[in-house]
Amino acid sequence: MTIQVTEESIGKFSTAWKDCIGTGRLGLALQKEYVEHLQLVQEEIGFRYIRGHGLLHDDIGIYRELQTENGTKVFYNFTYVDRIFDTFLELGLKPFVEFGFMPKQLASGTQTIFAWEGNVTPPKDYDKWSDLIKAVTSHFIERYGEEEVLTWPFEVWNEPNLVNFWEGADKEEYFKLYQVTVEAVKEINPNIQVGGPAICGGSDEWITDFLNFCYENQVPVDFVSRHAYTSRQPHKKTSEYYYQELAEPQKMLDEFHYVRGLIEQSPFPDLSFHITEYNTSYSPINPIHDTAVNAAYLAKILSQGGDYVDSFSYWTFSDVFEELDVPKAQFHGGFGLIGLNEVKKPTYHLFEFFNHLGEDILYRDDRQIVTKKSNGGYSIIAWNLAMEDHAKELTTNIKLTVPSNTYFIASKAVSEQYANPFEVWKQMGRPRFPSKQQVKILQDAAIPYVNYEQRAVQDGELLLEISLGRNEVRLIEIDVVNDETPTYDGLDDNLILHDR
Amino acid sequence: MTIQVTEESIGKFSTAWKDCIGTGRLGLALQKEYVEHLQLVQEEIGFRYIRGHGLLHDDIGIYRELQTENGTKVFYNFTYVDRIFDTFLELGLKPFVEFGFMPKQLASGTQTIFAWEGNVTPPKDYDKWSDLIKAVTSHFIERYGEEEVLTWPFEVWNEPNLVNFWEGADKEEYFKLYQVTVEAVKEINPNIQVGGPAICGGSDEWITDFLNFCYENQVPVDFVSRHAYTSRQPHKKTSEYYYQELAEPQKMLDEFHYVRGLIEQSPFPDLSFHITEYNTSYSPINPIHDTAVNAAYLAKILSQGGDYVDSFSYWTFSDVFEELDVPKAQFHGGFGLIGLNEVKKPTYHLFEFFNHLGEDILYRDDRQIVTKKSNGGYSIIAWNLAMEDHAKELTTNIKLTVPSNTYFIASKAVSEQYANPFEVWKQMGRPRFPSKQQVKILQDAAIPYVNYEQRAVQDGELLLEISLGRNEVRLIEIDVVNDETPTYDGLDDNLILHDR
Amino acid sequence: MTIQVTEESIGKFSTAWKDCIGTGRLGLALQKEYVEHLQLVQEEIGFRYIRGHGLLHDDIGIYRELQTENGTKVFYNFTYVDRIFDTFLELGLKPFVEFGFMPKQLASGTQTIFAWEGNVTPPKDYDKWSDLIKAVTSHFIERYGEEEVLTWPFEVWNEPNLVNFWEGADKEEYFKLYQVTVEAVKEINPNIQVGGPAICGGSDEWITDFLNFCYENQVPVDFVSRHAYTSRQPHKKTSEYYYQELAEPQKMLDEFHYVRGLIEQSPFPDLSFHITEYNTSYSPINPIHDTAVNAAYLAKILSQGGDYVDSFSYWTFSDVFEELDVPKAQFHGGFGLIGLNEVKKPTYHLFEFFNHLGEDILYRDDRQIVTKKSNGGYSIIAWNLAMEDHAKELTTNIKLTVPSNTYFIASKAVSEQYANPFEVWKQMGRPRFPSKQQVKILQDAAIPYVNYEQRAVQDGELLLEISLGRNEVRLIEIDVVNDETPTYDGLDDNLILHDR
Amino acid sequence: MTIQVTEESIGKFSTAWKDCIGTGRLGLALQKEYVEHLQLVQEEIGFRYIRGHGLLHDDIGIYRELQTENGTKVFYNFTYVDRIFDTFLELGLKPFVEFGFMPKQLASGTQTIFAWEGNVTPPKDYDKWSDLIKAVTSHFIERYGEEEVLTWPFEVWNEPNLVNFWEGADKEEYFKLYQVTVEAVKEINPNIQVGGPAICGGSDEWITDFLNFCYENQVPVDFVSRHAYTSRQPHKKTSEYYYQELAEPQKMLDEFHYVRGLIEQSPFPDLSFHITEYNTSYSPINPIHDTAVNAAYLAKILSQGGDYVDSFSYWTFSDVFEELDVPKAQFHGGFGLIGLNEVKKPTYHLFEFFNHLGEDILYRDDRQIVTKKSNGGYSIIAWNLAMEDHAKELTTNIKLTVPSNTYFIASKAVSEQYANPFEVWKQMGRPRFPSKQQVKILQDAAIPYVNYEQRAVQDGELLLEISLGRNEVRLIEIDVVNDETPTYDGLDDNLILHDR
Repeated sequence: MTIQVTEESIGKFSTAWKDCIGTGRLGLALQKEYVEHLQLVQEEIGFRYIRGHGLLHDDIGIYRELQTENGTKVFYNFTYVDRIFDTFLELGLKPFVEFGFMPKQLASGTQTIFAWEGNVTPPKDYDKWSDLIKAVTSHFIERYGEEEVLTWPFEVWNEPNLVNFWEGADKEEYFKLYQVTVEAVKEINPNIQVGGPAICGGSDEWITDFLNFCYENQVPVDFVSRHAYTSRQPHKKTSEYYYQELAEPQKMLDEFHYVRGLIEQSPFPDLSFHITEYNTSYSPINPIHDTAVNAAYLAKILSQGGDYVDSFSYWTFSDVFEELDVPKAQFHGGFGLIGLNEVKKPTYHLFEFFNHLGEDILYRDDRQIVTKKSNGGYSIIAWNLAMEDHAKELTTNIKLTVPSNTYFIASKAVSEQYANPFEVWKQMGRPRFPSKQQVKILQDAAIPYVNYEQRAVQDGELLLEISLGRNEVRLIEIDVVNDETPTYDGLDDNLILHDR
Repeated sequence: MTIQVTEESIGKFSTAWKDCIGTGRLGLALQKEYVEHLQLVQEEIGFRYIRGHGLLHDDIGIYRELQTENGTKVFYNFTYVDRIFDTFLELGLKPFVEFGFMPKQLASGTQTIFAWEGNVTPPKDYDKWSDLIKAVTSHFIERYGEEEVLTWPFEVWNEPNLVNFWEGADKEEYFKLYQVTVEAVKEINPNIQVGGPAICGGSDEWITDFLNFCYENQVPVDFVSRHAYTSRQPHKKTSEYYYQELAEPQKMLDEFHYVRGLIEQSPFPDLSFHITEYNTSYSPINPIHDTAVNAAYLAKILSQGGDYVDSFSYWTFSDVFEELDVPKAQFHGGFGLIGLNEVKKPTYHLFEFFNHLGEDILYRDDRQIVTKKSNGGYSIIAWNLAMEDHAKELTTNIKLTVPSNTYFIASKAVSEQYANPFEVWKQMGRPRFPSKQQVKILQDAAIPYVNYEQRAVQDGELLLEISLGRNEVRLIEIDVVNDETPTYDGLDDNLILHDR
Repeated sequence: MTIQVTEESIGKFSTAWKDCIGTGRLGLALQKEYVEHLQLVQEEIGFRYIRGHGLLHDDIGIYRELQTENGTKVFYNFTYVDRIFDTFLELGLKPFVEFGFMPKQLASGTQTIFAWEGNVTPPKDYDKWSDLIKAVTSHFIERYGEEEVLTWPFEVWNEPNLVNFWEGADKEEYFKLYQVTVEAVKEINPNIQVGGPAICGGSDEWITDFLNFCYENQVPVDFVSRHAYTSRQPHKKTSEYYYQELAEPQKMLDEFHYVRGLIEQSPFPDLSFHITEYNTSYSPINPIHDTAVNAAYLAKILSQGGDYVDSFSYWTFSDVFEELDVPKAQFHGGFGLIGLNEVKKPTYHLFEFFNHLGEDILYRDDRQIVTKKSNGGYSIIAWNLAMEDHAKELTTNIKLTVPSNTYFIASKAVSEQYANPFEVWKQMGRPRFPSKQQVKILQDAAIPYVNYEQRAVQDGELLLEISLGRNEVRLIEIDVVNDETPTYDGLDDNLILHDR
Repeated sequence: MTIQVTEESIGKFSTAWKDCIGTGRLGLALQKEYVEHLQLVQEEIGFRYIRGHGLLHDDIGIYRELQTENGTKVFYNFTYVDRIFDTFLELGLKPFVEFGFMPKQLASGTQTIFAWEGNVTPPKDYDKWSDLIKAVTSHFIERYGEEEVLTWPFEVWNEPNLVNFWEGADKEEYFKLYQVTVEAVKEINPNIQVGGPAICGGSDEWITDFLNFCYENQVPVDFVSRHAYTSRQPHKKTSEYYYQELAEPQKMLDEFHYVRGLIEQSPFPDLSFHITEYNTSYSPINPIHDTAVNAAYLAKILSQGGDYVDSFSYWTFSDVFEELDVPKAQFHGGFGLIGLNEVKKPTYHLFEFFNHLGEDILYRDDRQIVTKKSNGGYSIIAWNLAMEDHAKELTTNIKLTVPSNTYFIASKAVSEQYANPFEVWKQMGRPRFPSKQQVKILQDAAIPYVNYEQRAVQDGELLLEISLGRNEVRLIEIDVVNDETPTYDGLDDNLILHDR
């Protein structure tokens, strides 16, 4: 198959894919390894926002009821949250604030989620909750300035449509929580952006109901948020693994599209729409996340997701993550772009590759995207998603209309064969707690395969024959060569070893 | 061809190849890029000594005659040399001190060498020279302590057998310089090690004459030093390039051997013997240094050189070097293991590979070395030197007797095809002053090719089929697998994408 | 009063004061701020060992019982402890291992201590406990090597003589725990050093009983450990503060001495004796720790403690500490040498000052210590402990017999007036969560007062008139001046501004 | 004397004092110590531009005539200048480009200046000079982009009115050089800002002549530049020192004012006016630069200079400087704000203090400036310049009208007594090449004296009694206290040591 691509732009390429990134609970942001991974991600990818759970959880410890000389007193402790938000901002990341979960002393019940026991019950006292929201919001403005805080979205709770995230998945109770929260925030500053309902897929009627509720009750709402995972229920579950089937990537894009439609038909048709979490599997012990297929699978979503949503936030940047306990091995199926010990997974490179795309889309389909860069060069990402065992190499020819010139073509690739530290780790005997030497090998093994080529184009057409291995994702960058060779005095490479 | 290798050690592998490294003139050690390159070299290779010219040159400015109120006064300025030696020691390197060249104000003539104009004439006043040597030596002891300084060799001058390095290549005058110098040093501390004559090849009678001179005149001598380059006279010379033919690597080893013989037949048969410089070409603008062939060529020398000499010092670690002017391009034929902008050349990796060899040699010939590591694993380096155009791939089979077990085999390789940034740079149009984006590409392009494999050995024999491309150097490390796979609860990789 | 000090050494000054340092629970060692504080402490003080609670606590999560396909399985997770011990060793610190507290799944009861809920009950199954100890010990040897691990002391539990640290403060149960533990360790390697009983003061019969138990039951014991705090029961306790009276410093030294006597009279008279915790108050919310008096108080103990014990370990290096919740303010009475936001407290400088003492003691009493350094200079620390409101300035004259010469005298001091960031913070209005600008002020305010002086000694006596403010601790260093002034050509400072 | 200051702004405080900083010759920017000093300066002061000599000097080596196969060829080498400008931009500094001195191969004569031998003769061929300027300017745009380069001023030559900087101080020849240069630059991009004549004081008719020349010949000119030093001819000169008398600081301000007037009366009355160098003495071996008086002297100039000029550039930021040879001692009278070994001089702190001033001037005279900050606080800098031996302490009372409130007053000071490492170094015996321990003492000795105070204002007036020692410069910052003391549960500092 040959694809003909001209120089005509068919649209701007959205950077919604790098607008936000997910993180393990915010308390982990105090950890050194977490910060190192985040620094790496920011240097090489550069997300704009970061979102995670646990802002109000007891490990950060903002809310405390103290027994004092004058009776019980509410105390707000910002020691840790200041460190955490300072870190984010120093790394060029703004908080995408998520209010949750419930501080133990403010909770109406005892139901918790995760190894770290986030309380998922409504407040026992909505006035105290409102005070807490106001105190936190005020503190942010005091420390970071109004101008800065006005750029942060504030989202109310996480996946209230699931019984394990919100007691009883009680919709009315959630709307109450939302209303109290948004009113508290707006009392501090009416221009702060607040939204919800932060649901996971499967209950999209919540979106419509939520917006209707806001409309009918004149409750402010500035954006809609939802999550998207394409894994089905696990077909096998053990203490160390979830195994699940995946739907096709298109399913996620369809969901993006569908929910956008719901918003457009709502009383607030122009609201921003943020996918505040997405990934293949929603489980932090599904080994899919460690594989090459995960990268090849997500390529289409990064390529097309921005057509439907204002941001979509990969869940998560690092395997420094504790929802199901301290990670039990180097590779354990964690969500991270970066594995423990700073080992980059194939999906990390997928994101890094997308960072090289240009502003203008010249061509796009389910297996590739061709862009033109502002410096006049071209960037292509092509992928070969192979979810079936019999899937094979894929070869595509792209015929690119370009000015006649000499070009330098640089390719980088990850696949099942290259830059696949998960496979190398298996060959090493799956060391759970690798030695420093083993870590070094895994880091080496995670470096993409590279290839370089010079090509002269005389007839205005550059033909690229792209052969992709199983689950390969390849970045191809094409730039005009400014040939300085003639400027070297007496140059003759043939003379390096011979006298003639 | 199949090589049969048993577990029996045939000797210890000498680390003389990493005992010392050469550097551009010492004044360059004040530069930031120089220090960064040296830091990298020390982290990944870890030499023990460093040797370069120009300790007494006027840019470091130790020797000054000042016009003072009380007439001319000699002044010793240690501002810069302290910074330089501090830097070396902080990086784990000891100085291999070379006394030279002549401070302008102490010189008897005006002849200079190099763009930086090192004066190569004898002192106009040997008493002042002696005072200078004593002042410098005393200062080193005062600042770094006697214990430390006693581990530093002190070499007198550089290549006095060449007319461009020592006025008239006057042997008697050199012996005089040597005698005055060694006596000055020994006056400060008789246990400091001093040696010479630091000649380049082609005049080995100097060695014999030098040792006889010391013997007959009771002049102390603690070691012999000499250089070794295998390039012939240039068959083409331009303002930017020297092109030269190379002798076979064996020629260098023969020279090592021959000079060792001269020492053994001298009145000082047990003296240490240091090759204080070696490389293929002696020119800093010969592109051979940037190529893959340079690495493949030197492999045999690193493998066998330690049989004959106490140390041999590759000239030099970095292209931060100015003998023939400020480097005029990213690649310009410089000596460096590391090119400008921290781009590693193939020879850098050769050295890094040798760092992985074990203590015991199991097998060695002209194209490979097989060692056993103290942790029970094996390390092999194999190479395919291809100096002729028609040279081809080379395949060798190594049959290694090993305990029956499962092994993890990690390979790294550089060759004409991989980790060859010089070739990629050519494809880019040889940018003289590359942009940051171009530098990043070159750095990526300099990373060795890696391959990993798990292999079960049931009959006590591990067969390695090693196919090497042109001028490939490959490191193969073989370690027993401690297989933790059975400890994972419910592991079944087949279930990652499928439910059965 | 004038003290006459000659050059005669009256003994070697022990460095037991810097042998070990205490830390908040080991899980905190994953945090970035913790590591930064520890790095600072190691650069400027340089302890040799570090000891803290919580090695076996569930946040590090070593011990887990998993529900697997094949029933319940014990799983040992070393992910976090490897990071923690790697960090310590990279910073030049060896672990002083403390086995405790009880993993929840291995605990026989539910009693916990601290906000972080360390379980203080015996194991529900001593065989599983023994397996855990063996697994942990084996893992340490595998990762760090036998040679390294043999230098680590292993202590069994913490303060079992207190009901809140060991259920019922049950002595027999502790001896059982000790015996099972030591036997487990010695099964892995009989040369590892193991000890106990890690008691706090007030029940020293435990020492005698413990050693008798070991003797009678042929249970190995390699060292004795105990804690020492000089604060009485709090006279006022609130949610934010403990206020307590302090005994005189001598009381702590008397305890050191007394327990050493108990050991000498035991069946193991030559055992090492480690004070594995000490401080003024045992409470992490007693503001004494933030004051200048804390430093002045401890000076005598650092000066003399090494006469009685093999090591004594200040509790703790940093306010990154969570025993009573996340710290609620910049200053909150925490144990740390370093406060939050890297603000050094007076006691930090006390330790840094002691690092400047020489090897030989020339004079020592309750208010000063005079030492001679190996470079020929002298170091003095003098202090003026003022626990009463009416206490005043103290002036002491020290007449030091020294060679006639010119001396450079450098002093550094902390006191109520200088280097007292706690007072400055009060003046700022006690900001709980200071801004970056406020933090900068506090860091500036924490720098010791310095003074420098040149003094010519002509008659062999150097008279130092030392006036100390309230709770001042002063370091005085005296070094011979090597006067280079005459070497400057034409120097005349009077001419800088004037022509005559 | 009491000064009454109200809250009314009498003008905006110009930041012209930090617009630009001087540097030793640009080739030194390759050095590690240079970059470290510059980094420190940028972190704590933050200049916007940097200007130094030697862009075209042979050590950077941009201009080369090569003997090639095809005859002599001009070659432009950007290897080093790229590193240098990259470094500046990474540190937040833009180049204030100075074209000079003459490349040896392009020079019409042999006259040089400085130990590093900058050639000060006109080009032997103005066409080649024009080509060089065009090549350099084009390269800057290519590498850094047009938008960036348009913010850089380009100055032609340095002090052509001095015979040692410009052969014969030939004014007509300079105008020719200027014209050729500006026309070359404008040919590349007409919007680049170009100016001159970069003269030192004493020949201000050059300014008028220069502007008339431009006007009459329609030669573009975008700014006027001049230097300003207030030292007279040396009354004593040796190989190590220049001693000179200083005029009053007002003289420099008068010069600023006078030259501004010349411009206003010229055909280009609105041109920018840059003082591209200023200091007390123009000699790099005048010890005035190391003293406290230098800081006190310059305070008035920093305070008032911005009234007359668009920028004024202190000469220079660091003692890494080689005009009169490698520095011969730790303190040697160098221009640097920072001395060798990262020892900050008093003038460094003067600049750092000015960084704390507010936007609005409330009061200003010859000895103080009072400003209001945008956060509502106040900043004062007061100084006591004492050039005479009999000069004494100075006490000034400032009565500041402020809202009634509680204030935190933070002071920092440098003077002859405090933060005067030059004096401490003298007491140490003026070690030329200090040991690391000595350097640490000097760094400690360079830290400003600090003082903190809380003050309640009840009647709307804050009285500051400011007593300044000889040559003291003091920064006083006054901020409202937000008193959180009442929020601490049970706080009673009196209970820390006592029970009542």
